[in-house]
Amino acid sequence: MIEKTLRAITPLDQLEGLKKRVLDHLDDLTKPRGSLGDLERLALQYCLVRQTDKPQIRKKRIYTFAGDHGIARSGQVSAYPPEVTYQMVLNMAGEKAGAAISVLCRNNGIESFVVDMGVNHDFSETQGLLRHKIQKGTEDFSVNKAMTHDDAVKAMGVGIALAQSSHESGVDLLGFGEMGIGNTTSASALYAALLPADVENVTGYGTGIDEPIRLKKIAKIREGLIQHERDLKDPLAALSALGGFEIAGMVGMILGACSVRLPLMVDGFIASAAALVACKMNSHVQDYLFFSHVSAERGFTVLCEKLNLKPILNLGLRLGEGTGCALAMPILESSIHLYNQMATFSSAHVSDKQ
Amino acid sequence: MIEKTLRAITPLDQLEGLKKRVLDHLDDLTKPRGSLGDLERLALQYCLVRQTDKPQIRKKRIYTFAGDHGIARSGQVSAYPPEVTYQMVLNMAGEKAGAAISVLCRNNGIESFVVDMGVNHDFSETQGLLRHKIQKGTEDFSVNKAMTHDDAVKAMGVGIALAQSSHESGVDLLGFGEMGIGNTTSASALYAALLPADVENVTGYGTGIDEPIRLKKIAKIREGLIQHERDLKDPLAALSALGGFEIAGMVGMILGACSVRLPLMVDGFIASAAALVACKMNSHVQDYLFFSHVSAERGFTVLCEKLNLKPILNLGLRLGEGTGCALAMPILESSIHLYNQMATFSSAHVSDKQ
Repeated sequence: MIEKTLRAITPLDQLEGLKKRVLDHLDDLTKPRGSLGDLERLALQYCLVRQTDKPQIRKKRIYTFAGDHGIARSGQVSAYPPEVTYQMVLNMAGEKAGAAISVLCRNNGIESFVVDMGVNHDFSETQGLLRHKIQKGTEDFSVNKAMTHDDAVKAMGVGIALAQSSHESGVDLLGFGEMGIGNTTSASALYAALLPADVENVTGYGTGIDEPIRLKKIAKIREGLIQHERDLKDPLAALSALGGFEIAGMVGMILGACSVRLPLMVDGFIASAAALVACKMNSHVQDYLFFSHVSAERGFTVLCEKLNLKPILNLGLRLGEGTGCALAMPILESSIHLYNQMATFSSAHVSDKQ
Repeated sequence: MIEKTLRAITPLDQLEGLKKRVLDHLDDLTKPRGSLGDLERLALQYCLVRQTDKPQIRKKRIYTFAGDHGIARSGQVSAYPPEVTYQMVLNMAGEKAGAAISVLCRNNGIESFVVDMGVNHDFSETQGLLRHKIQKGTEDFSVNKAMTHDDAVKAMGVGIALAQSSHESGVDLLGFGEMGIGNTTSASALYAALLPADVENVTGYGTGIDEPIRLKKIAKIREGLIQHERDLKDPLAALSALGGFEIAGMVGMILGACSVRLPLMVDGFIASAAALVACKMNSHVQDYLFFSHVSAERGFTVLCEKLNLKPILNLGLRLGEGTGCALAMPILESSIHLYNQMATFSSAHVSDKQ
């Protein structure tokens, strides 16, 4: 399934004719050339992903992937106890959902789902909660592989299927984020392994730990990187060894969305670890991704430099859940409105440049 | 009128009790403390301006102030001919308005008006166009004062009245931008005079001039600064000498909005020249202003450094019209939704920090 999905991802840089048509149209709108800055770049990218010069955004959706982490059980990497993962999942589901992502989606016209990929809790049927649990949390990656290869592949399969069903139900802008106590530790380990980067430079304060705990977190990550050294050349093996069920789900969603040309917005630090894995699995992936915001978590700027990213927003957010996507989607949507609805110089009888 | 408006602007930094209540509430929401970054700062500022811990944004409005500039008649400072000012005003009015600001406001639930402050054209009655023409354009400021003192005060009065009538009709978030061929030249002159700054560092390419034209533009500004040297210590005198009718209108709107505690969003390079004038007239003004975006025009970052600004967006925009406001308003609005609608740790049964 993964091989098939990867093969379906085609390069965007060969669409020269479409690119020229889109840029010509942007230049014909009643504004100085290029004066809409990044919005012009975003509209172009959206058109290239959709392979159309008549783009539309009608239905937006964000998935929040949730999972628990063995590394968090030690109480040495996070400011919050592990049960916060399931408590926050419940805070994201139901009609009165009170999590930040729920509030933003409700007010910005975005469908919102939370996906149990590997939470250490038995959930009953709840509106907005999708139950795809693989295991009740990962193993402690400083000791064992976080996930078996088979479980990681299973988790990716969930993400692929959700991307494809979103596509089939008419979603034309997809976003994803995560919830999982301990998952900045997994994400930092993946940054260190795959960028690659020094652990110290890509390990931050997560939900608000202090410096002594951050040093313990760094030590745990270093143990994990030594333990799994042989696996770190291959992105899927690194994901299994260091990742989490929610991270694997996000990797799957990225590959699935790219394979059906569904424009995809990436949230912050942890979601970008999934993006990094996916980019390492297929070199065309990055062209499809809209990075929503510059996470305040230490190490994100290292990623931006190495991958040459310019995320849409820079608001000092470090919450996750998909909140960056929910805030940036209206900006991308605005770029499409401008592309479609602005007058041209000739239609509006405006004199062009002298 | 201006004296009375200035006296009504009260400091925000004495609202310690309110500030503590707002911050305590933000810390009680189900997220790590501070993890919503700038959104928490924006929600706090909005509460302080409104003097309430129960903020609401129900009605948003943006005014685009338009005026022509004598300095543009020479054809030596802009890439577009002066008639584009009136043509774009017409492109912003009516039901099928096709300017960028019109498209953004229509799609983002923002009321939009264009205000003729001093356009060199006789407009007939048109929906969405407010006719407050003071003169048919300014004088060339490299030779004469751009406006007489009385005309500048009249233009400010229009802005004050529009802010106050917006307040009375229930607008709780106001924004403003401008249209006027040649007005980056006026704005750069005001930056140079009032920041103060070297002309070279605050004079850019405007709508897309080339380097030889930019050098002519710099020379014109230098002529103006020498010509009006005696007026440059006083912000109102500098505004009259170097500004424009649309800039004076914006200065008035800022003072009017502050005087009735109406939160106000500032657009880009030229709107910020008006903000600079207003801040120099009253030291409390800056605390009321939400700067919407980092303009790509050279010199804007000089302003940000000198005034210690952190605008909401940084999208490389250099269009004006109020487009930055229309894009940033949804972000500020999201911060208020989060403040009002997120669950607290106790209400959602989520464990707090260990």
